[in-house]
Amino acid sequence: MSTTTQEPTIYYGPKVNTDDVPNRYVGTPVIPWTPPVPGIDNLGISSVDTFAVPGVGEFTVEFNGWVRVVRSEPTSQDWAPAEVYTNLLEMRMVGESDMFGPIIVTLQPEILSTGMIRNPRTEEGHETRAKACRMAVAAQFQLPKLGLQLFNREPIELTIDNVKSIPPAGAPGKGQIYFVLPLFSRSAPDGKPAAYLTSLKFRMGGYLTASELQSVA
Amino acid sequence: MSTTTQEPTIYYGPKVNTDDVPNRYVGTPVIPWTPPVPGIDNLGISSVDTFAVPGVGEFTVEFNGWVRVVRSEPTSQDWAPAEVYTNLLEMRMVGESDMFGPIIVTLQPEILSTGMIRNPRTEEGHETRAKACRMAVAAQFQLPKLGLQLFNREPIELTIDNVKSIPPAGAPGKGQIYFVLPLFSRSAPDGKPAAYLTSLKFRMGGYLTASELQSVA
Repeated sequence: MSTTTQEPTIYYGPKVNTDDVPNRYVGTPVIPWTPPVPGIDNLGISSVDTFAVPGVGEFTVEFNGWVRVVRSEPTSQDWAPAEVYTNLLEMRMVGESDMFGPIIVTLQPEILSTGMIRNPRTEEGHETRAKACRMAVAAQFQLPKLGLQLFNREPIELTIDNVKSIPPAGAPGKGQIYFVLPLFSRSAPDGKPAAYLTSLKFRMGGYLTASELQSVA
Repeated sequence: MSTTTQEPTIYYGPKVNTDDVPNRYVGTPVIPWTPPVPGIDNLGISSVDTFAVPGVGEFTVEFNGWVRVVRSEPTSQDWAPAEVYTNLLEMRMVGESDMFGPIIVTLQPEILSTGMIRNPRTEEGHETRAKACRMAVAAQFQLPKLGLQLFNREPIELTIDNVKSIPPAGAPGKGQIYFVLPLFSRSAPDGKPAAYLTSLKFRMGGYLTASELQSVA
């Protein structure tokens, strides 16, 4: 775990309280259809991302790592109406590209990546038991071999359908991408996109131990 | 046209030059398969938006109005590889809800709403003649009858498929929304969502006259 030194100034959604909220590690029960008390979930995550670099081509990379997600007090103790707000406090995923070497994914410190878990639709007659999870993510992709750091300006919208427990440990999800999501280079942040994210499929892992968080990725 | 007094500090994509770029009004030719020289397009727009207000219900509103969009120099004079970057300089749409009275949609002044028109996919073998248009929009919805102003924190991603001319005048588009897009209230900006946008279907209009821009909406 690194220490976050910069406070975000841009929020994609509500900020969730972290004061006195305990970390949750391996052994935390995940109970279906039950809104949990607040926590900072330390979870594994894996992702398969496809990038396109204009003039170079497309490449797909498998990432593995962890996230730290703070969850709010649920808005109800009953599962059906309950909403839970989330913030991504930290993320670290590492992958390896044959062409471009290692790629390390972390969060943009200037932006608070936020999410929520709620019923997919709000209106009457559309209630479902399973919920939908959304997370708007401001990520940065370090490619040390190329001396390149990429970041997104439109949030990467990570979504998980059919959520039956909170956290949705083990559930598959995807990035909602309209064809291509532009990625910009930190060395020319106001220039044209340096690359595009064209596909993102991820899977939330289970709770990790504190030491796994240190060693994974 | 109102005078924009605040410069955006948050960008969803590249800023497009507006210096010495002329306004384009009625009479500007729209030539298929031809990248145009830069311009500030003054275009009509209509939209049918559905909102959900927790505890109140869903309502659908038809909006009409105009946008002012600056287009960049195309990256190529050939249609096939050409990319064009866009910024929404101004937007004004007005609709009327039976329940909530008039709703006026404008841009959030703090955020630069940006877009691009390019091939839907980048990799070889996926070239198409028609392009895809995306625009990440930071909007605000004024509901004067309720004394309420709503705004989005995740961009509203407006997209137009099958773009055969620039601007895509007359083309239908939609908002890419994962179930519900949270809207927040200016009076409690850090609180929970006050409403949700659940569906957005729009149509780009044609060029307007300068006086239509004053009178429409």
